[in-house]
Amino acid sequence: MQQFYARQMRLLDERRAEEWARTFTEDGVFAQNIAPEPLRGRDAVAAAVRRNLERTADTPEQRRHVFSMLTVVPGPDGSLSTRCYAQVLVTPAGGPARLHLSAVCEDELVPHGDGWLVRHRRVEHDGV
Amino acid sequence: MQQFYARQMRLLDERRAEEWARTFTEDGVFAQNIAPEPLRGRDAVAAAVRRNLERTADTPEQRRHVFSMLTVVPGPDGSLSTRCYAQVLVTPAGGPARLHLSAVCEDELVPHGDGWLVRHRRVEHDGV
Amino acid sequence: MQQFYARQMRLLDERRAEEWARTFTEDGVFAQNIAPEPLRGRDAVAAAVRRNLERTADTPEQRRHVFSMLTVVPGPDGSLSTRCYAQVLVTPAGGPARLHLSAVCEDELVPHGDGWLVRHRRVEHDGV
Repeated sequence: MQQFYARQMRLLDERRAEEWARTFTEDGVFAQNIAPEPLRGRDAVAAAVRRNLERTADTPEQRRHVFSMLTVVPGPDGSLSTRCYAQVLVTPAGGPARLHLSAVCEDELVPHGDGWLVRHRRVEHDGV
Repeated sequence: MQQFYARQMRLLDERRAEEWARTFTEDGVFAQNIAPEPLRGRDAVAAAVRRNLERTADTPEQRRHVFSMLTVVPGPDGSLSTRCYAQVLVTPAGGPARLHLSAVCEDELVPHGDGWLVRHRRVEHDGV
Repeated sequence: MQQFYARQMRLLDERRAEEWARTFTEDGVFAQNIAPEPLRGRDAVAAAVRRNLERTADTPEQRRHVFSMLTVVPGPDGSLSTRCYAQVLVTPAGGPARLHLSAVCEDELVPHGDGWLVRHRRVEHDGV
C-alpha cells in the first residue's frame, strides 16, 4: 500500500497528469476542503491536474508529496479505507526546500489487476 | 507497528487526551529531555496532556506528529523496543505549515489484546 | 527494507562515518548531482563522510535524514532497485528545526548476510 502511494504521487511530482489521473477509477471522485466542488470522474481529475501543471509550468520548482502515518482498514467488496498525513515540500531552482502544506488524505481504494485504483479521495488541508 | 503509531499520534493530534493516555500501560512512563522529571503512570500522562491541550485551546492551530525511520527489535517477554524519528508540523489558521520540532522517540511496547501499549517512552528533542 | 534505511541513515546522523561507509560494498559508488564526480569505493565514501563531519564538527547542530515514499523492485542476481524521497532536517543548538533539503535517492542493493549493502547510490537534490 505504501508503494502504491509512492508510485502514485511520484507521477504527480513528475508532472505526468494523464498517468496520475489513471490511478483513479473512471468514476473516481477527488474532494478537497479548499475546493468548492469535488472533481467527479477521471476526465475531470485529469483536466484539473493539467490546468494546475500549466499554471506552474513557468515556475521551475520541484514539488514532493510525502505521505506518512498510513492506516488501512478493509472495507466491503475488497475495497480499502486508508488515511494518511500528507506533506508537500517545494524546492525552487537554487533552493532552499520549504514545507508548503500539511494535510490529511482519506481514500477509498478498489482492487484493479494486481494493484489499486482510487474510487474516492478526500484531502483536508490543515489551517483551512 | 507503523499503524499503531499512526493511530496513536492521530489521537494526540485530534486532542483526544484520555484515549491517547490509554495507549500507555497503567504504570507507563513518559520521559522527555525537555522535562525535569518523567511522567509516571497513565493518570499523570493524561493530566499532562490535558494541561497542554488546555494551554493551546485558544490557539487555532493544527499539529501533526509524523513518525518515520522506524526500527523494531523484539525484547524479552514479548515486548518490543522501537526507535523512530519524530517531526511535529504545525499549521496555524490560514497557514502556512511549518516544521515545529525534530526528535527521536524510543519506546518499549508490550502486547495488549491484538495491539500494543507503551510501557516506556523516551523522547529526545533535537537541539536541547 | 525500511529498517535498513532507518539503521543506515541513523549511523550518518550519529556521525559514525566508518560504520556508515561499511553499509556500501567494497566497490560501492555514491553519486550526487551536486558533486562533479561519483565517489568510487567504500574507502572514498568513508573519507568523504569524514571530511564532511570534520567540517561541521564545530557546528553543534543535529541532522536527521528522513526517507519516505519507498519503492522496491527486485533486480537480477538477488539485487534490489529502490527509490525514495529524502528530507534532511537540521536543528541547531537551541532550535528551531528546519527543513534543509529535499532529494530523491535511488539505490542498487545487494544481499549481504541477512541484510543488504549499497552497490550504487544516486542522490538527486531538488532545485539543482
